[in-house]
Amino acid sequence: MQQVSDLSRYLDQLRVQIEESLISASTFSDQCPPKLLEAIRYSLLAPGKRVRPCLALMACDACGQPAEKAIPAAISLEMIHCYSLIHDDLPAMDDDDLRRGRPTNHIEFGEATAILAGDALLTRAFEVLALGIEEPDIAVACISELASAAGAEGMVGGQQADLEAETRTITDPDELQGIHRRKTGHLLAASLLMGGRIARADDETLECLKIYGESVGLAFQIADDLLDVVGDSAKMGKHVQKDADHGKSTYPGLLGIETSRLKASQLIDQACDAVSCFGEQGQHLIDLAKYLIERDH
Amino acid sequence: MQQVSDLSRYLDQLRVQIEESLISASTFSDQCPPKLLEAIRYSLLAPGKRVRPCLALMACDACGQPAEKAIPAAISLEMIHCYSLIHDDLPAMDDDDLRRGRPTNHIEFGEATAILAGDALLTRAFEVLALGIEEPDIAVACISELASAAGAEGMVGGQQADLEAETRTITDPDELQGIHRRKTGHLLAASLLMGGRIARADDETLECLKIYGESVGLAFQIADDLLDVVGDSAKMGKHVQKDADHGKSTYPGLLGIETSRLKASQLIDQACDAVSCFGEQGQHLIDLAKYLIERDH
Repeated sequence: MQQVSDLSRYLDQLRVQIEESLISASTFSDQCPPKLLEAIRYSLLAPGKRVRPCLALMACDACGQPAEKAIPAAISLEMIHCYSLIHDDLPAMDDDDLRRGRPTNHIEFGEATAILAGDALLTRAFEVLALGIEEPDIAVACISELASAAGAEGMVGGQQADLEAETRTITDPDELQGIHRRKTGHLLAASLLMGGRIARADDETLECLKIYGESVGLAFQIADDLLDVVGDSAKMGKHVQKDADHGKSTYPGLLGIETSRLKASQLIDQACDAVSCFGEQGQHLIDLAKYLIERDH
Repeated sequence: MQQVSDLSRYLDQLRVQIEESLISASTFSDQCPPKLLEAIRYSLLAPGKRVRPCLALMACDACGQPAEKAIPAAISLEMIHCYSLIHDDLPAMDDDDLRRGRPTNHIEFGEATAILAGDALLTRAFEVLALGIEEPDIAVACISELASAAGAEGMVGGQQADLEAETRTITDPDELQGIHRRKTGHLLAASLLMGGRIARADDETLECLKIYGESVGLAFQIADDLLDVVGDSAKMGKHVQKDADHGKSTYPGLLGIETSRLKASQLIDQACDAVSCFGEQGQHLIDLAKYLIERDH
């Protein structure tokens, strides 16, 4: 419990800086039409856990540099995450009306503005990195890292694969893992890598951060799937069946609950091993990994 | 005529390099789902004038550096232009079924894939700059230039303003100009600026390129509006009325045909003045500016 409250205080401190920076990074001149600005800020400044920004700051901190040095990376990651939610919610995609209890962007502002708000956030993410990171070689490395994680071979590709998979049933756990890796894993890994790059971490350290990010990303997804199944009631079989009826493949559905739990736990061990090289400075990363699969909401 | 055929040969040479580079820049690993790849290439490799890529290469050339040095800028510009067409054609935006005689991206691949193909192209544009430009400080300057021209205060903002203007009548020529400047002008200016930056042009030269780009961009739009009105038949009044019936404001509609012609011609003079400092090396830019408003298609 001590560890959780330490972690929680630490994350709260990081989030204060993140929220302030999100506000200033979403300030535009009057060349941005007011409705577009409102739509951008409606989604970007909505309450959120800021997982990716926190990971970027934590990685920079673990590498021995002040966390705030990674603020441009943190902001760009949240912008990419936010744009992807706006576009994924569109009628042509997942067609969601609500996100965390609030109307989705296109419900509030109309589809055209929602598409454009997403495009503007995606574009701004790269501008924030180009303008905000002082050393050009690091800025270029972060831009390249972010684009690779977010693009056709990463997040966008994962969303396409996910949409295509809805019309059939995935029976191969590796295929499910491949989709999640692209849809969420790469961007989580990029969060840590960008934080590490800003701290000028060496290749070996970057590799450790990458393993941590990918393992935590996958474990997080399995934990999410498990919560869907066993979170509310104990009617597991029925819930799994419900997911299957919706054509949505999940880890518990494919591997069973116990094997899924084991896999998540192994991934977290792997993540913690990977960052053990940081010693004391990696403690927050270890606490976060453990917290992610122990949470009950 | 001699000038036009010189220009035309010169542009053809540039386009050979551009087409080859577009193909290699739109090559992805098998992590990109095949349908997404097909959608990306369907639009990116469709026949086109490649105006923005040509301008980037021409600016680099005019500044005394080999045109091909600006290839990453050229490719990134075409990717941004292409993504904007895909998204603008969507049912929620301009709802177009055909582009240059071919089905638009969402008609061919479905809306979800079209949105994602646009997102992937937008993301890849920045990756191409980060990976393709050798000197990091220039890469950062180009990324920042492109993001600013394409984002909420540039192209995306212009598209939002344009959509909002459809529900009412624009009566102020300055407002119409403000929309065009953002929707197309900034990206045309950025094309020249990126070419100049890659050639390490000084601030004064960059300013000349910027004036050229903005003037040519606006003149091009006026010329386009004039072609809509007087291109096919001589029924000018009726055609203007037709545009007005569609709620689309045009320069001839607001200023009259003669004043529009005069304005376009003044803008071209301004563009040619701006690049006179290049002497002989700026001749292709001058020929292009003159060609753009003399064309009849």
